[in-house]
Amino acid sequence: MATTDKASTRDRLLDAASELFYREGVSIGVEALCRTAGVSKRSMYQLFASKDEVLAASLARQLPEYETQLAPDSQGAGTPRERILHVFERLEKASSEPAYQGCPYLAALVELKNPQHPASTVARGAKDWMKGYFRTQAEDGGARDAELLARQLMLIFDGASARSGARVETLDGLTVATVTTLLDAAGVT
Amino acid sequence: MATTDKASTRDRLLDAASELFYREGVSIGVEALCRTAGVSKRSMYQLFASKDEVLAASLARQLPEYETQLAPDSQGAGTPRERILHVFERLEKASSEPAYQGCPYLAALVELKNPQHPASTVARGAKDWMKGYFRTQAEDGGARDAELLARQLMLIFDGASARSGARVETLDGLTVATVTTLLDAAGVT
Repeated sequence: MATTDKASTRDRLLDAASELFYREGVSIGVEALCRTAGVSKRSMYQLFASKDEVLAASLARQLPEYETQLAPDSQGAGTPRERILHVFERLEKASSEPAYQGCPYLAALVELKNPQHPASTVARGAKDWMKGYFRTQAEDGGARDAELLARQLMLIFDGASARSGARVETLDGLTVATVTTLLDAAGVT
Repeated sequence: MATTDKASTRDRLLDAASELFYREGVSIGVEALCRTAGVSKRSMYQLFASKDEVLAASLARQLPEYETQLAPDSQGAGTPRERILHVFERLEKASSEPAYQGCPYLAALVELKNPQHPASTVARGAKDWMKGYFRTQAEDGGARDAELLARQLMLIFDGASARSGARVETLDGLTVATVTTLLDAAGVT
């Protein structure tokens, strides 16, 4: 019973952290976090050393879902080119949701400023995962320079997520068109 | 004399705001801002209605310099293609500075979340200026679709500034190579 309660307190904290940090930014305070979670500060500090650790844990917990949402199944059908484009089709779809505020991992990196912050480490991991995914597909697709293509695709992904999340751009096919041009130029057919 | 003092207080506040907001993010408090500026809170509130207004004014004050740094002189030599590439050469140079943390206007948009914030309005203006610059050059350079090319270039600029500012990418020619591919595809020779 005590174990279940602890798990539930942890889940409530991470749920609240995911929601608040995404919607309002990383500067949200411990008070607001605990109030939203319905958890006492004492309980929070029994589970986490600091608010920074809660933020890092909430980003880490979201990562498997983030990866599943963006990338096709690991054994998914399709060519490497299609598997790359799939990520951008998903991004464009996600960015059209009213609550979309951009990639939570890029936002964390931009907002925290500090590469040593535990949440920055998690966020870098998410970016490394995606770049690795692109690089693998680029290699499988015979890109002339797979590393260059992967880095280019990350520029597009992060530029598009930041701009659409900030409502200065409505993607509407923009990333798919841009990525198509880069895939063609890299020889990924 | 009183006018000079007022101007100097305002300048000190805006200098401190530019530095602190850039280095530590938009959540920096009024206390820290006034302490860094060496200005009393009372003086601050005589000049600005709120911290949000200080942030907006500091971003607005930086804008002419930002534009001068990135774009060549309005009567500058060079083809439209060269004038576009110039922006990315400048971005790459800026991003190699140790204190670089990305484009301050993109950071403000990502951090503030709120499109109605007075600083978001200034930041959108900076982004609109750049997109307009790219669009004009794209038209002058005979791009097949000048609007599409300008939007693509903004993805690259903002993706590159966010990623290099967050230290997950070292540009080192990446944007120039990517933009070259997009210019070629758009028919801007």
